[in-house]
Order: sequence, then structure tokens, then C-alpha cells
Amino acid sequence: MSSSATTLKGQPLDKAVLDAMLRRRMFYTPSFEIYGGVGGLYDYGPPGCALQANIVDLWRKHFVLEEDMLEVDCTALTPHDVLKTSGHVDKFADWMCKDPKNGEILRADHFVEAILEARLKGDKEARGQKVEEKEVDPKKKKKAKSAAAVKLDDAVVQEYEEVLAKIDNYGGPELGELIKKYDLKNPETGVLPSEPVAFNLMFQTSIGPSSNLPGYLRPETAQGQFLNFAKLLEFNQSQMPFASASIGKSYRNEISPRAGLLRVREFLMAEIEHFVDPEGGKKHSRFHEVEDVELVLLDRHVQLSGKTETKKMTIGQAVKNGVVDNETLGYFLARIHLFMKRIGVDLSKMRFRQHMANEMAHYATDCWDAELLTSTGWVECVGCADRSAYDLTVHAKKTGAPLVVRERLDEPKVIEEWQIDIQKKKFGPLFKKDAKTVETALEATSQEQREKLAKELTETGKIVLDVEGLADGKAVIDKDSVVIEFRKRVENTREFTPNVIEPSFGIGRILYSLIEHNFWTRASDGGDESRGVLSFPPTVAPTKVLLVPLSSNPQFKPAVKALSQKLRSLGVSSRVDDSSASIGKRYSRNDELGTPLGITVDFQTLQDGSITLRDRDSTTQVRAEESKILDAIKSLVDGSKNWEAVASELPKFEGQEIEVAVR
Amino acid sequence: MSSSATTLKGQPLDKAVLDAMLRRRMFYTPSFEIYGGVGGLYDYGPPGCALQANIVDLWRKHFVLEEDMLEVDCTALTPHDVLKTSGHVDKFADWMCKDPKNGEILRADHFVEAILEARLKGDKEARGQKVEEKEVDPKKKKKAKSAAAVKLDDAVVQEYEEVLAKIDNYGGPELGELIKKYDLKNPETGVLPSEPVAFNLMFQTSIGPSSNLPGYLRPETAQGQFLNFAKLLEFNQSQMPFASASIGKSYRNEISPRAGLLRVREFLMAEIEHFVDPEGGKKHSRFHEVEDVELVLLDRHVQLSGKTETKKMTIGQAVKNGVVDNETLGYFLARIHLFMKRIGVDLSKMRFRQHMANEMAHYATDCWDAELLTSTGWVECVGCADRSAYDLTVHAKKTGAPLVVRERLDEPKVIEEWQIDIQKKKFGPLFKKDAKTVETALEATSQEQREKLAKELTETGKIVLDVEGLADGKAVIDKDSVVIEFRKRVENTREFTPNVIEPSFGIGRILYSLIEHNFWTRASDGGDESRGVLSFPPTVAPTKVLLVPLSSNPQFKPAVKALSQKLRSLGVSSRVDDSSASIGKRYSRNDELGTPLGITVDFQTLQDGSITLRDRDSTTQVRAEESKILDAIKSLVDGSKNWEAVASELPKFEGQEIEVAVR
Repeated sequence: MSSSATTLKGQPLDKAVLDAMLRRRMFYTPSFEIYGGVGGLYDYGPPGCALQANIVDLWRKHFVLEEDMLEVDCTALTPHDVLKTSGHVDKFADWMCKDPKNGEILRADHFVEAILEARLKGDKEARGQKVEEKEVDPKKKKKAKSAAAVKLDDAVVQEYEEVLAKIDNYGGPELGELIKKYDLKNPETGVLPSEPVAFNLMFQTSIGPSSNLPGYLRPETAQGQFLNFAKLLEFNQSQMPFASASIGKSYRNEISPRAGLLRVREFLMAEIEHFVDPEGGKKHSRFHEVEDVELVLLDRHVQLSGKTETKKMTIGQAVKNGVVDNETLGYFLARIHLFMKRIGVDLSKMRFRQHMANEMAHYATDCWDAELLTSTGWVECVGCADRSAYDLTVHAKKTGAPLVVRERLDEPKVIEEWQIDIQKKKFGPLFKKDAKTVETALEATSQEQREKLAKELTETGKIVLDVEGLADGKAVIDKDSVVIEFRKRVENTREFTPNVIEPSFGIGRILYSLIEHNFWTRASDGGDESRGVLSFPPTVAPTKVLLVPLSSNPQFKPAVKALSQKLRSLGVSSRVDDSSASIGKRYSRNDELGTPLGITVDFQTLQDGSITLRDRDSTTQVRAEESKILDAIKSLVDGSKNWEAVASELPKFEGQEIEVAVR
Repeated sequence: MSSSATTLKGQPLDKAVLDAMLRRRMFYTPSFEIYGGVGGLYDYGPPGCALQANIVDLWRKHFVLEEDMLEVDCTALTPHDVLKTSGHVDKFADWMCKDPKNGEILRADHFVEAILEARLKGDKEARGQKVEEKEVDPKKKKKAKSAAAVKLDDAVVQEYEEVLAKIDNYGGPELGELIKKYDLKNPETGVLPSEPVAFNLMFQTSIGPSSNLPGYLRPETAQGQFLNFAKLLEFNQSQMPFASASIGKSYRNEISPRAGLLRVREFLMAEIEHFVDPEGGKKHSRFHEVEDVELVLLDRHVQLSGKTETKKMTIGQAVKNGVVDNETLGYFLARIHLFMKRIGVDLSKMRFRQHMANEMAHYATDCWDAELLTSTGWVECVGCADRSAYDLTVHAKKTGAPLVVRERLDEPKVIEEWQIDIQKKKFGPLFKKDAKTVETALEATSQEQREKLAKELTETGKIVLDVEGLADGKAVIDKDSVVIEFRKRVENTREFTPNVIEPSFGIGRILYSLIEHNFWTRASDGGDESRGVLSFPPTVAPTKVLLVPLSSNPQFKPAVKALSQKLRSLGVSSRVDDSSASIGKRYSRNDELGTPLGITVDFQTLQDGSITLRDRDSTTQVRAEESKILDAIKSLVDGSKNWEAVASELPKFEGQEIEVAVR
């Protein structure tokens, strides 16, 4: 395979080999496979499930506990009105084309991307250049392969490359124009697909027995957090800033999911909504703790110029230079970086990419994605958006709920401004049933308008105001009914709608990328084909310790059982493999499962109580009495020691790792 | 309130007071409340979310880790075919009536129950007896209240009581008959509701852009586990028995959910599918570990006789006497009992109730519910069903997937039976295109049939077989085309479909019942109204330690921060309350949140480093140097010591717990 993706050890990554291994070890598996499966739905088997649980557990420690976030668990079922207000009913869509000949449904941006990439590939072949497949998504591979080796003009190549660099920035009409401009026919049928139409990505259902309450499965966990804002603020004893957090399933009815765990219809998200005062530049009190963290950044301007070069800089510099908008956004980018490091992501395969204007979700004012490089290219794994006050504002407006912060001012604030006093006794009789309407229009006037109105009132003794909803659209108000004055007013509280910084994690994408980043193969001793290893850090590894009796001889059972119980009481997960396979085979199986440590119980154990401990990555072993080995395991699992330290402290053991035949 | 439900301390439980407290402390809250809410949907706030996470964590330790279960995470979205095969499309329904006058939709069993209970209540009032509301569900209260105080005949009272005892045993037509027989008119309108019709409880949606794949939200997590059976068995290296487990959301479109967390449309389930060989009486290798656990049982026969008396016996006796069908089912009932005890359920408010025949789900052969007594009566919190081989059989039949176990026999088995040998050379030309159909029909014959056919063949030289799908429905086979013989056959492997024992936990119901079981009120020192306390065991308490600086004086901040970090590194969750409220008020707030321990940092702390530790339940305090207090906390949280032990070891402190005014 000519892919330029590499394993942890820099070997070429053979995705087919990896996929076969993940399937064999049941990390994940297509849901409902015996029924033929359903696109975009996957189940996690035991190791995938444990890996997911460990990532989530670390996420909770790294974010929720570290910063006293308020975790909530909201329902996935969401009534129509909520998602109508949030904008999802109208705008949460992908652009979809239909092939008029065979009825195939195509996602417009993927379609354009695939054909242009195929043509560029054909051009390279025609020029006799090596074809890099790194950036080619498997979902488009079928078509990429079918392009002919045709040389393109240099100018056309540059144009295609520029289009691809900003592919995420095009809307439906623009994608339609690209299809016509470049004559992008569906290779399956040889015809142009239809004009792109918006396809809403939410799953619809109806709630209750009488089918009268339409609802959706949430496309993100955020809305539940916004709707609970007032209660959360109260729970937090009205202190700002604060963050809520939520871990749960979300749903998106993808048009044609074809990339394994990377584009699925049901997925686990972990989202934070950090509520911050929009005044004062969105500073963060702990920014100094992270300002020296160095990030790899790909900003909006570079992409819009049709390029993909990244810059490396500390988050302190990035905020100072205005590359990243504010401290709070910057703080979370750095914290995301540290989280990725903690779970074992290969940091040389991570970058932060800023969204281009048209690419951003309808609610965002700035957004950076943490992207991880995999065999299918750069994958968006975390989005970190500044949603401004959008969500709280629209929900407050729709429902009338006060989703605001009221802050007692330390010093009362004296404001000098144009104020309007309505003289009710005259005003009421003057407008009768329209009085409220006119009053509302008056209150809605700006300071500039008021200044003009005051002048008009002084000069003419009356004002003429445009009022929507009145018979003639105008109200004439005389000087007996209203006073407009420039004067002082004292404010004791300040009311504001917080802005929201939202780090949003796709756990499944992180999990899959983490697997690729930790995968490598080693040649086996016996000369068979190379064997897969998943070098997960012990903290996220599905199982920490494999317990292996030398053979299935029943005399080993009590020692193995006792060890298993001791490990459990230390909070260390272990699994026993007392199958009849050779020790080498059993270890090999667990290298594929990513189990970092192995204990062998042999005849010497029964004599002197000593056990051996094996390191997955180096396959070296030490041997010592049980208590010392258990101490070593505890330190390795909690991260306070690495294998080198343990190996330097305990006697090396070289006796086993032989293929002992023990049927 | 005249309810006979009691608190942990035996006080009358005032549900209104408890509900107000749970709302105030944001344990849970109606979802989408600012949009008016949606029946049966609730969000968990921070304490509810933490309580839920702790229950789930203990569940995972108690069941999954303790028994090496294979945890999987399957999708909630499920295609139609799967749930059609499982029987849910046709049978997963409740009986629903409609009021012809106002269109109100009523759940038939609840409707019958409510009116009969109201009549019994009216009868008691008429007889001047005290009315027990314990067993009256709030969902029916409106109607119960509207019944008049009318005395009934003694025989009628007995009849109603018998109907109520077996209300879960009636189907739709029987409920319809009861409505007519007892003239059960809707109190809202005074008319009889319509005949009950089945309403399917699954939420429907469609998967993919072309709407051609109908699907549902799963009503249970079980199906995903069954569909993965073959892969799980392989993952388990073909060893039997084994269990899979899954924790995830399920969905039921309840007709009229009105009982808070007890009847919701989206809920967290934790389910185990224990696969066991149906031969050999379903023994369990660890049954001896639990056989002396004593359970409170309400069996099927008692209920069918119209009574509700329970019996107390060890699970060993219950299995021996046949009250509980087999060891595996019994093992899990005992393990459920121990889990409930571990999380802090009041065992005097728990019973195991056996399902009556008509009440059981369509797949079950025996089923026991762990029920917890709450202010709304007995609530089913865990179901423990023997689903036999139902699910694996129907899915295997539908898909052709071999959902079976193949076991190598230690000793080959010799079977003597009637066997059929088809003589292909003659048989083929005889039936031509129908050969396969006739062969299948022959293979499908039973031993009895074969014996008769052999006799027929010997006597007449031919057999006449009914074959569906043939032109005349019959095949005539002569003795040259078939041999039927009674002879020996040697089997080296045994193939069987495992039976499934399924303990299924409704986490939300357990959580709510646990809250009620641990709630009590204590009179305040200051003479205000009594204050709520939630005496959760430290293991499940949402937060373990409250950190309270004596005042909001900034000089306390460093000590509080340092303590908070030390507790975090011990894995103990804590929260700081440095608000300006009095110490008493701050502790009182955390008694309502169920926080078991409190640390006060005062001026003496700054001098000598000592801190005080307060016990939520007794409000007594000890004072010692920091390291001793941290050790005590660690032991209290991991359950190795109780407060009495700590209080006997460390010096008592009586200085604080004064209402210090500290603005």
C-alpha cells in the first residue's frame, strides 16, 4: 500500500492490516451486522468499550473535576421548538445532489472534492509523479481510482488545489457552480448531478401517543446546557464565570457515511459550555498556567490563500498577536492540547485549524478545530467555538426566560443619558388603546434619536414618531404627554448575557485516531508474519494487566485468582488468559489489545511466591516477590514511574518468552 | 399529608418538601422547562449527575469487573427488521383507551386501577376508616380524590382488592371487560372510555437520506448484545458460561408519564445478558457464595390468589424449594440484593416480586422484579428474567447466523436413532427441480414419523409424504431412492443455543428510590423549620467533602486550595463553599446535597495547620492535624472505617457549628 501514513514507529501504516486486527479483537464492529449492517452505526466490543470509558474518565478528571465544572445529563429527545429557535431546524444541513440517472444520493462537497482529487491524481500519474494517498478519504476512494491519467494545465492544477484548500468554505449554490464550471460528472453514470439541495441532518420522531409533538434526536449536547443556564447559575451561587459540561450520545443522519468510526450517525460527545462575561476581553484567571504551551496552528488567512502551512507558537503569543481571539478561547485550546497529550495522542500528528467564515456553524463567531492526522487525512476531533451570546439570546427571546447574569456593582454606576418620562395622565387618554404600543416605541428609541426628539419637542412643542402597528404608522406626541431630558441615573446592578466558549469533543474520532497513533508492528521471534501492537499509555489501555499461568495446570489457579483479587483491590483492571495457547501467543493477543503489562505465574511462583512482570513495548521482563511487583504495577498504572525506572530497580528475567507447548 | 411513607428516621415523609428540596438543589429538573417542558423527560443537574455516575461506577465494579463480564456499547438507533424479529414491533405495547367526549388518552390498566382505588377509598371514608395513601400512585391521585364517600358491599370490596392485586396480569380485552363490568366512567367527562387498543411504545424514525430505512430507538439494550453473541463468544475464546453487559439510554414512548423519575420516556439502563447452557439445570459455579443471602419474596401464586404477603427465605432455600427456578437466576437475585445494600438502599423497603404469566414480557419464561417501596408505592427497579433461548433462536432463524455454542465433547456421544439416507442417483431424477424441497421435508421429520415411514417403506415399498410447495402437496418416494434405518451415530461436538438470564436495572428509578430511602429531616438549632438531610453512603454521595473557610477572608484561600488539590490526588471529590453565608447555612445546604463530610479552615488552621472534620449525620466534629484528617477521610470514603471509629480515634471538637455572621 502506497499510503504515506505511518505507525508509531514510523513504519508505513497498512490500514487493511490494522482494520483486520481491530475487528479480530472486537474493538468495534458494524452494528446489526447479521442483519447486513446499517451505514454509520457501530458497536464497541469489550476493548473498545473500556478504551472509551477510560478516555471519558480522563476527560472528566482533566476538565470537569480540575475546574469544578457543573456536569449535567440532558435528554437526547428534543422537541421541535427548541431546535427551531437554536437554528438547527433551518440550518443544520449538508448539501446533497442526486444523480438523475441512477438516483444515487451524493454529498455535494465530498463529490466535488473526490472528482477534483481524482483529476489531480490523474495529472500526477500523467506527469510520472509519485501519488500521495495520505489526504484521500476512503469514502471517495472508489471514484478517485476511476480517474484517467490525464495531464492538466499548470494553472488548472493550481486552481483545483486552491478550491480544495477552501472546500469547507463553499455553500450549496457555490458547489453547484463548481460542478457546472468544471463539468463534474458522476463517474458511475457519466452525467452531471442535480443542483445541491439542503438535507437536514437531524433524526425526526414524534413524542407522545397522539403524534402531535414533533421532536428530534439532539445533534449536539449543548442545547440542554443552555436551557438550564439560569438554574446552573443559581446552583453556582450566582458566581461567574463558570462552565457546565455534558457527556452523552448525539445523532446526525449523515448522507452517506463510509469512513468507519470517523463519520457515524450516533456518537458520544463530551461538551463544555464555559459562560463568560463578554466585557473585559474574555480574560481567563488561569491563562498564565498554560501560556507557554506550544501549539501548531493553521489560521483562516493561510487557508483562504489556498495554502495549508502551519505555524508553531505558544498560546501566549497567539493571543497576544490576535491569531487566537481571546484568553478564554486560548486557555481551552491549550487545555485540549494537554488532554490529547495525556491520553497518548502523537503530538506530531496534531494541529489546530481555524474555521473560515462560511464554514463556521451558524452560531459561531470564531472556531478552531483540533485535528489529528490519520491514514484518511486530517480529522476534526475537537471543535472549540466562541458561540458568543447567540444561544442564550435566542432562547431568552423566544421563551421570555431571563437567561442573564445580574451582577451587583461594587460601586453604583452613574450614567448620564437621555431619559424619557411618560406623563401617564395625559398620555393615556391621548392614545387610548394604542398607548402601550406608542410607549414601547418610545422606550425603544436610541440615545441619538432621543437627543433629536428632545430638540424637536423644545422647538415645535411636539414630536412625530414612526410607530409600527398604528393606523397611519405615526404618533404625534405633545409636550404635556412626554418629557425628554439629559440627566443622571444610578445603577446598582449590571445585567448581561454571557458569551459561551464551547470545547466540543467527538470521543469516537479521538478513540480511532488514538488507535492509529499507537499502532505499530513488530517482527515475531518465530519468523511468522509481523504482529500488531497497540502502545496505549497505561491510563487509557482497556486492560492494564494480563495474568498468564504457565499452563492450564489446575495447580496455578489459586495463585492466579489471588493475584486477580489483589489487583482489583488496587483498582487495576486485569484479565486472566488460562487458555491452552502458548505463552507467546497469549502475550501476542494482548499486545494487539494494548495491554501494557503481563504477569506470568509459573512453577517457581508456587515455590517462592515470585512472579514475572512483562512490558508490552520492550517485551523485557523483571522477576521479584509479589509485593514488589504489585507496587511497580501501581506506579506504572498511575503514571508515577515508567518501565525504565521499574526495570532498573527490579531484577531482570530472561527465562521465558519461549513458545512453550502446553496442551 | 397523610401518607404512610416514612423517612430514614421513621418520620412521615412529606413528598412535597422532598420534591422542593430536590428541585432547589438541582438533583433533577424537567427538560426544556423554559419551553413548558415535555412529559416524561428529565435532566439531571450536577448532584443528580454525580449520584448517577457513582451508582453506575459501583454497578460496573459489582457486576462487570467482579465477574469479568464483556461490556459492550451498542447503538440506540435500531433498524425495523431487528425489532420485528425480536417481537417488539408486534408486542411491545401498552393498552390505551380514548375518552370519546374530550379525546383524553388513558392508559387502560392505570385507569382501571385508579378508579377502583378511588372507590375503595370512598368506601373507607364512608366506613370512617383511616385512608392509607401509600399505595396510591400520584399519577392517579387526581381521580382518586374525586371519588365520593360511598360504602360498598363487603363482597365488592374483596372483588376490587383481588382485581387490584393482579392488575398487571390483565390484557387489553380483559381490561375492556372490567371497564364495562364495573361501569368505570372517566370522572372528567362521566362517559365510558373506548375499547382498549394496543399502542406501541417505541419511538420511530428513519435512517438515511432517502427515508427508506425505518428504524426505532431501542426500548432496551439487550438486542445489541444478542446480535453480537457470536463475536462475544469468540472474544471469550469460546468459553461458557459468560455474560455481556451494557450501560446506555433506552426509550419508551409512555402514554401518559406523570410520576417524576419513575416513569420516563428516556432512561439509563444497565443490563446483563448471562449466557448459560440450558442442560444441567442452569447451575452457577459461585452460587455457594450467596446461598445464605436472605431475600423477601412475593411469589406468583400468592398474587394470583389476590394477596400480597411476602416470605423471607435464603436464596439457597428458595432454589431448593423451587420458588426460584434455578441457581443462575437465584445467584443474580442475591447479587442484586447485595448491590442494593451496597449503594445504600433501605433493605426493609425492598422485595422481590415474581411476574404472573400474562404479565411477563413476550420473551420471558420466568421473571422476578426487585421492587423498592417509595411514597408512590412499590416500584419495579430491577427485572431479572429468564429469557430462555428465545432471542438467539429468533435472530438465528431470521438471519441464518449461527448463534450457537459448539462444544467439543470429552467423550464422543453415541446416539441410536432413525436416520434417513437419500440415494442421490435415483432421488434426483425422480423429483428434478423439487428434489431440494422434498429432501428438506424428509430431513424435517421427527423420530416418531421416521419410525412410521420406515415401516411403510418396508411394507409397501414406497412412502407418501406431505410436502408443502409441491403441485399436489404430496411426494411419493420409492425404496430405491431412500433408506430409513435405526442405527448408531457418533457425535464429537454438541451444538446448543444458550439460555439467557437477564438482570436489567433502571438506574433512574433506583436513583430516585435511593434518595427517598436516605432522606430525613432534623430540627434546626436556631428553631427555624426542619432541614432536609440525604444520608447517602460516602461511596455514592455526589460530593464527598465540603471545604468551608470560616469566612470569605482571602487569607483562607491558599489553605483551602491546597486541601482541595490534596483531596483530588486522593481521588476524593470535594467542593469549596466560600460564599458569604454562615457556616451553619453552608453545612445545611450540603446536608441537602448529601455531602457526608465537611472540613472547616479557620484561624487556628493558619496557626497550627489543624483542621476540623464534620460528620453529616451526627453533626459531630473532630479536630486534628491535616494528615490525620486526610487519612480518616480516605478510610471513610472507601468504606474501611465508619464515623464512630474515626470519632473514637481523633479529638472531639465542639468549638464551631455556631451561626457565625461573616459578611
